[in-house]
Amino acid sequence: MLPFARVTIIGLGLIGSSIARAVQATMPTVRITGHDADADVRERVRQLGFCDDVTDTAGASVVDADLVILCVPVGAMGAVGAEIADDLPADAIVSDVGSSKESVLTALRAVLPSATIIPAHPVAGTENSGPDAGFATLFNGRWCIVTPPEGSEPAAAERIAEFWRRIGANVDVMDPKHHDLVLAVTSHLPHLIAYTIVGTASDMEEVTQSEVIKYSAGGFRDFTRIAASDPTMWRDVFLNNKDAVLEMLQRFTEDLTALQRAIRWGDGDTLFELFTRTRAVRRSIIEQGQDDAKPDFGRSH
Amino acid sequence: MLPFARVTIIGLGLIGSSIARAVQATMPTVRITGHDADADVRERVRQLGFCDDVTDTAGASVVDADLVILCVPVGAMGAVGAEIADDLPADAIVSDVGSSKESVLTALRAVLPSATIIPAHPVAGTENSGPDAGFATLFNGRWCIVTPPEGSEPAAAERIAEFWRRIGANVDVMDPKHHDLVLAVTSHLPHLIAYTIVGTASDMEEVTQSEVIKYSAGGFRDFTRIAASDPTMWRDVFLNNKDAVLEMLQRFTEDLTALQRAIRWGDGDTLFELFTRTRAVRRSIIEQGQDDAKPDFGRSH
Repeated sequence: MLPFARVTIIGLGLIGSSIARAVQATMPTVRITGHDADADVRERVRQLGFCDDVTDTAGASVVDADLVILCVPVGAMGAVGAEIADDLPADAIVSDVGSSKESVLTALRAVLPSATIIPAHPVAGTENSGPDAGFATLFNGRWCIVTPPEGSEPAAAERIAEFWRRIGANVDVMDPKHHDLVLAVTSHLPHLIAYTIVGTASDMEEVTQSEVIKYSAGGFRDFTRIAASDPTMWRDVFLNNKDAVLEMLQRFTEDLTALQRAIRWGDGDTLFELFTRTRAVRRSIIEQGQDDAKPDFGRSH
Repeated sequence: MLPFARVTIIGLGLIGSSIARAVQATMPTVRITGHDADADVRERVRQLGFCDDVTDTAGASVVDADLVILCVPVGAMGAVGAEIADDLPADAIVSDVGSSKESVLTALRAVLPSATIIPAHPVAGTENSGPDAGFATLFNGRWCIVTPPEGSEPAAAERIAEFWRRIGANVDVMDPKHHDLVLAVTSHLPHLIAYTIVGTASDMEEVTQSEVIKYSAGGFRDFTRIAASDPTMWRDVFLNNKDAVLEMLQRFTEDLTALQRAIRWGDGDTLFELFTRTRAVRRSIIEQGQDDAKPDFGRSH
């Protein structure tokens, strides 16, 4: 039995459009309605054809939905929730795909006090944005974290979990606060550091931009991929998961300072010990299917 | 006309074995002699067959060479130079592939005072190590930086440049000191940061190792690739390019502190401005053929 029959997706960028395509591919009888605040995106989605209907307002998109998934930057969740409040069917479940979960739940509860809200976060993506960037297999083998609020109906969370399993994801259930801490380490801190180092390298006086680009295969280019991610999405993530990000940043800075000291004092053993330990982490990620085993990410040579 | 007829490669790991394979593929009449300090590696190379001869001592490998390339960690260059000093033909050129150039030149000059030394650095690699990890096309379209010491014969540097062009690389000539600064930004700092963050994520108490691995597709996994690079090689790089690495680290830390402050005070504009600027760097790297345009590095989904 399908977990939902009429799914509305608000925000038709990389993630929203990938969900729509994945639903089309795996649950073809489900009716998909889409809305995006940007008229050009709506127009493009009508051409791409992965929604059965694209509405000009958020309210119109939800009127007969049994699932509404908000795929907008986490800073916009409250405003979008307010836009659909009057039209949302009483039995619809509202979910989202945001990268911070406590803040989203707070924002949605404030504007949709009587709705069933089951936040979720598919840990998947690419550095590209917009409705053309999405694809049906984006969630295959990736994890989706469902964070049901305390006291919510278990059956509602299970329907959301089943929805994500149907479109290819593995599902974990987690407390929103713990989610925010875990993602601060595995996603938010890496993005912040990638953005920083790409900025640092761009601002050198002694080394030209052209040199940075030419010799980027020495390691730098790896960081530029995630530093090319959507600026609005990421600004919102950092502002909405502030405490956990600042805590992780503090730990990272301490560890970096220890390595800096080891380099300054010529303490090769400390460096060697860490560099050996980190190899094992890569191996585990590959063994658990969370990255390609191909060297250099399988880049063509 | 071939730049060299008898090439000796000392150190038969990822880079040394890739050079041998590339020479075999592009200059099949060149005689390749190899040596590695590790008897198991020598045995394996004899099986793999990309050297015409594998010698048990470094000295024996150079007796009739016109080019000797040292492909060992930068901290081992001096010792290997001393090993070949007595057997090195007077007209042979000694080169290397190390990631720091001032320290290598100093180390080699001390033990080979009358040899022609033309250091070089191919900016290419993967996270894998050992003779099985190499492949003939590793240098295709990558840059090799040749750093001839002041007062050296221009013809010698040109022969080294021609050698690298023959095996697929683009060649730039640079002052060793400037090389070390450029590579500190484009390679050494990225590696140091990747090693650090993978270490930080492994040492959490609130977040388990298993969670870090499961949700690594949120960005973290990208860092694990370069943090899986050879520990000995990288320990040596940091100890041998200390000043430039510490300077870059200082700049990075300042920039990270500014972002930390922006997050703490909710200054979204500063974040947004940086995140927009970094996108352009990625675009340039792709336009100049230094990375794949495919999203997510072309990982399979």
